[in-house]
Amino acid sequence: MSNKIIAIDLGGTSAKMAIITQDGEIQDKWTIDTPIHDEGSHIVPGIIESIKKQLDLYNLTEDDFIGIGMGTPGAVDSESKTVIGAYNLNWKTRQDIGEAFEAAFDLPFFIDNDANVAALGEQWQGAGDQEPDVVMVTLGTGVGAGVVVDGKLVHGKNNAAGEFGHVTIETGPKAIACTCGKKGCLETLSSATGVMHLTRRHAREYEGDSDIKQKIDDGQALSSVDVFNAAKEGDTLAVKIVDEFAKSLGLGVSHLGNILNPARIVLGGGVANAGEFMREQVEAYFMEYTYPQINEKTKIVLATLGNDAGVLGAAQLVNLGVN
Amino acid sequence: MSNKIIAIDLGGTSAKMAIITQDGEIQDKWTIDTPIHDEGSHIVPGIIESIKKQLDLYNLTEDDFIGIGMGTPGAVDSESKTVIGAYNLNWKTRQDIGEAFEAAFDLPFFIDNDANVAALGEQWQGAGDQEPDVVMVTLGTGVGAGVVVDGKLVHGKNNAAGEFGHVTIETGPKAIACTCGKKGCLETLSSATGVMHLTRRHAREYEGDSDIKQKIDDGQALSSVDVFNAAKEGDTLAVKIVDEFAKSLGLGVSHLGNILNPARIVLGGGVANAGEFMREQVEAYFMEYTYPQINEKTKIVLATLGNDAGVLGAAQLVNLGVN
Repeated sequence: MSNKIIAIDLGGTSAKMAIITQDGEIQDKWTIDTPIHDEGSHIVPGIIESIKKQLDLYNLTEDDFIGIGMGTPGAVDSESKTVIGAYNLNWKTRQDIGEAFEAAFDLPFFIDNDANVAALGEQWQGAGDQEPDVVMVTLGTGVGAGVVVDGKLVHGKNNAAGEFGHVTIETGPKAIACTCGKKGCLETLSSATGVMHLTRRHAREYEGDSDIKQKIDDGQALSSVDVFNAAKEGDTLAVKIVDEFAKSLGLGVSHLGNILNPARIVLGGGVANAGEFMREQVEAYFMEYTYPQINEKTKIVLATLGNDAGVLGAAQLVNLGVN
Repeated sequence: MSNKIIAIDLGGTSAKMAIITQDGEIQDKWTIDTPIHDEGSHIVPGIIESIKKQLDLYNLTEDDFIGIGMGTPGAVDSESKTVIGAYNLNWKTRQDIGEAFEAAFDLPFFIDNDANVAALGEQWQGAGDQEPDVVMVTLGTGVGAGVVVDGKLVHGKNNAAGEFGHVTIETGPKAIACTCGKKGCLETLSSATGVMHLTRRHAREYEGDSDIKQKIDDGQALSSVDVFNAAKEGDTLAVKIVDEFAKSLGLGVSHLGNILNPARIVLGGGVANAGEFMREQVEAYFMEYTYPQINEKTKIVLATLGNDAGVLGAAQLVNLGVN
């Protein structure tokens, strides 16, 4: 009986793959390295070969599956199943991923952006509790979001929905220049990079007693993790930095609440490892900035799936696509 | 052949009704007063009676129609087809509108909030150009929005999606208290009321030559229309006020752009009568605050349907509901 899905979560370092049931049970998981040499031309053939081997190993055939789903970096056109500008894969030109998979397997193939796919994974099997309206915010080096409305991903007019890291939080002279060319983006404040910007901003004028300040003055390397850890231990400078991080992110997610009133806003990505300590500070600002009726029902929660969000979301792409 | 729709746009003063084809052609339009006495208990019976008379007049029967659609003020539950808290209709308790219409006509009945229905009208037959993703912002005494994604209205977890007037624009000491209980809402700046707040803010410290300033000092009554007209004629104080109005609204609509990347953001409502003069100033700030890829494709446009947006949106509710 065909009720399984082949799911792929492609990243710059490795490609995670899984065999998942239509109900979201991961039956098998494996990982291969991502060969980015030769303009990334070996990536897709490598994944296809690995899947074929795995099916042979378990005596599975195409008849056991309803489709293949994939999340990938880059600008994805999920209609034409092509990807452009995935620089961490060395894909500089348009890649016809759909054609390659459809030639290799007699199965429907679906593809979307990795941030979108992770959001779909959390909505379906994670912190989203299968609520139809869920937004997942990924806090890493930058900030991105996947927007799920009525159980489906929102793409927008030119596949740029969810450019949440570029919501403008600060205007005026103190706004920090963003890599996108504009100023005051959420990403300049509430990402790993943003924490370092805020550290410089606050350390400059800080005169109290602080380990973080001491380390900066000594020229030691600092990371956003160090700042969150110091804040947890009560370092007064770090507390100020985390407060501004939380205020900026709280304002940003309040816009998601006021516009979409989703059941859940899920915080994920490396910076979300700061956990409940971070979440509750963001939530406090969210409550302050959100229409009362909305903050009764829109909940700020932490992601629960970790690295499995990608393959689970890729599997759900197939469920949505074949139904 | 049944291909017509009965559409109702209920307001505090009058109920607009229309017979509309499935393709959006308005074949007949009429209006009755809204009788709000006796807790608004005569409103729905009056509409039903008026529709029955109109059908008799044109020798039309239920067989000519595919359904009835309605937009109404208040908090609408479009699933249960009930309305609560429509204070301008004197509906203080929960009204079972669906039950009344379904008892009177053997036709499917659909209902939604008036701001949502107007957005659907503009998306379908107006400035939205039938693009699947459109947001309509209504600028009146307050500010509201209807969010259309994939051709359908977004309601959110507790029917509070589109509370766009309560997006937080200002924080800190200068943020103005809003009727919703929080501070710094878009509605305190970029509505008819907001223009008056901004007028007070700027007039206080303004020392140049200005007709608007003169009128305020003379204790004359001023409206937001006066301020926009003065700005068009170059009154320096009015120009400053409209600039801050446009900056606040430009920031607000940039959040819609960065999150949803809709094809169109439609500006409607009484304040949008300031027209192209207002639109282009809002657009300039929108461009400054929006991710470059998004402002290539998300367009800020003026509403085109005027008072017909409500009945057309109500008709489209039926199209979406029966298909």
